[in-house]
Amino acid sequence: MTGTSLDGIDTALCRIHTIDTTITLELCEYMCYEYPSEIKKEIQFLLNEPSPISIYSHIHHELSRVYAQCVRQLCSSAKFDIQTISAIGIHGQTLWHDPQQQRCTLQAGNGEVLAKILSIPVVSDFRSADVALGGTGAPLVPIFDKEFFSSDTNTHIALNIGGMANITVLPPRHSATPVIACDTGPGNVLIDALCMKYYNVPFDTEGKYAHNGLLIQELLQELQNHPFYKTPLPKSTGREVFGQQYADFLCDSFSNHHPNNLIRTVTELTAWHITDHIQRLSDNPHTVIVAGGGKHNIFLMNRLQELLPQTLFCSSESFGINADAKEAMCFAYLSYRTLSGLPSNIPSVTGASREAVLGSISLP
Amino acid sequence: MTGTSLDGIDTALCRIHTIDTTITLELCEYMCYEYPSEIKKEIQFLLNEPSPISIYSHIHHELSRVYAQCVRQLCSSAKFDIQTISAIGIHGQTLWHDPQQQRCTLQAGNGEVLAKILSIPVVSDFRSADVALGGTGAPLVPIFDKEFFSSDTNTHIALNIGGMANITVLPPRHSATPVIACDTGPGNVLIDALCMKYYNVPFDTEGKYAHNGLLIQELLQELQNHPFYKTPLPKSTGREVFGQQYADFLCDSFSNHHPNNLIRTVTELTAWHITDHIQRLSDNPHTVIVAGGGKHNIFLMNRLQELLPQTLFCSSESFGINADAKEAMCFAYLSYRTLSGLPSNIPSVTGASREAVLGSISLP
Repeated sequence: MTGTSLDGIDTALCRIHTIDTTITLELCEYMCYEYPSEIKKEIQFLLNEPSPISIYSHIHHELSRVYAQCVRQLCSSAKFDIQTISAIGIHGQTLWHDPQQQRCTLQAGNGEVLAKILSIPVVSDFRSADVALGGTGAPLVPIFDKEFFSSDTNTHIALNIGGMANITVLPPRHSATPVIACDTGPGNVLIDALCMKYYNVPFDTEGKYAHNGLLIQELLQELQNHPFYKTPLPKSTGREVFGQQYADFLCDSFSNHHPNNLIRTVTELTAWHITDHIQRLSDNPHTVIVAGGGKHNIFLMNRLQELLPQTLFCSSESFGINADAKEAMCFAYLSYRTLSGLPSNIPSVTGASREAVLGSISLP
Repeated sequence: MTGTSLDGIDTALCRIHTIDTTITLELCEYMCYEYPSEIKKEIQFLLNEPSPISIYSHIHHELSRVYAQCVRQLCSSAKFDIQTISAIGIHGQTLWHDPQQQRCTLQAGNGEVLAKILSIPVVSDFRSADVALGGTGAPLVPIFDKEFFSSDTNTHIALNIGGMANITVLPPRHSATPVIACDTGPGNVLIDALCMKYYNVPFDTEGKYAHNGLLIQELLQELQNHPFYKTPLPKSTGREVFGQQYADFLCDSFSNHHPNNLIRTVTELTAWHITDHIQRLSDNPHTVIVAGGGKHNIFLMNRLQELLPQTLFCSSESFGINADAKEAMCFAYLSYRTLSGLPSNIPSVTGASREAVLGSISLP
């Protein structure tokens, strides 16, 4: 799994068992590799400049050679014989995603190349099918949330706090209520941008800056007025809306305040839009299961719990899923579903016209 | 199948039977559809100008929507229920191919999109695997030639005369001699260019202009000096070497000659380099099996026969393969091989390090 921020290549080595109809997913090894600088530069160029098609062709093949190296290292560090791996799922690097107007999506990283280099089956291109069926092609994590975080009796919510924050509302298993999911707003992206700007650190470790700051009520109210929060479902957002530009704007507008107060306030914003969406989209959820980098922000986690005192906030690790490895594990699980002929999109989430087996299969 | 000249989308509806180890391939319907002008313009733009990546993403998805329409029309004109089709193989539109330096190849046309629109399994991206294994990714037709044109006792040659001419040398079945294949030089491309220039017609129907012309010995010798003909195997060529520019050059250099004499001479060139390669690459082949548009050029076919009087030149139709539909049928056959888990590249032809199942499988 590689995210749009190009910050690394997440790899998870998983063991998947099926006993009767119960699937168990066990993490054997998790590693995040740095992007080799040459291909990272090539991708950044392609994203920012009109480019000859040869550049995309090269990235599409070369990225699979990079992935092959990551898989080899992952197996080696886990002391795991690479030839016993059943399959590899690759999300690939998203280079374009416009399901609505142009009806297309593009992830670089060629399944055929990786499968043949390693002699291991590969599943790739998970999003195109849902887009072809009129869906948004995202999020794809809800089927994973449904499998591993649902309860037989209660409504659960899976919350991921990455650059953006998103939730999946999971009705009790076997309930007729459809699963729904959406982005709720910026997760760590604004907090991280302020930490980098004022302290030259990539994130607010354990939420200490926020803890030492005071809430600027006027700023919070202004941020809460962003139209995204009131937009009806389905909705998603990204760094093009809540990114560096937005962070710069709010710093400039409130430059007379202490950095910790600003960090405190954007942390409060994150806690507010998450709990606000949870309350609007579900009646009294029993449990919220948290994954993603934001889980390590203790101050943020406390604020979430305080804002929804009736609900239990717990880490995905209580459900056996490593909070950092979750997204990478998800694509291992999706490739398992594809090779089992099982659909992975949820039409009530993406708006697709039907369920579909996602991803193209490359034989070894 | 769509060629690099963007002249149309070739579609073949085939029935494939396997009885014991014998495969039979029957053509039910063959149609060549025009490229819709909008996507053709988009592709031409992408090939000629540095472009935002969104354009490639759109072409990759949109082309599959165009293919879906072609498949629907093909089935409808064959009065064939589309839902009974077992699988579709798509070559896609080649946008880049550089197996040696950059080690990549790129065909537009997304298998996932087509599979989901029609609810039919699709095999796509046939060339990447061979390139990943160090091969040239082309030609892929030799495995088809081997299956349908080999003899138990004699050496056969499969000859395709399209824009370029290429041959596959087929030793007797079960022989230890490897299959080899190469382009031999320009097929119809120069003849067609001269017909268009002097007579405004796309080709020399039945070879009539050539028949009425006289050979210009001096021009023939000059053309024969092109270094491509003496280049050792593996080798391939294209319109970037023998194309409009080359045709313009020879017209300018010999502008005092009658057009028919020029057409006669480039036709002789085609006959010469085909038979010259055949003689150099095989001892007394028993039969040459011809397909491609050049098969309809009676004058050219007669010259081939005269230059190699000991060898039988016959149409691929004698072997049950429609000469115009051959390439499209080949990709139907390749998709059948992929879904049967059979390899389709021939390492002695492409230089790949091993045989491999080619193409990525998208489930319905």
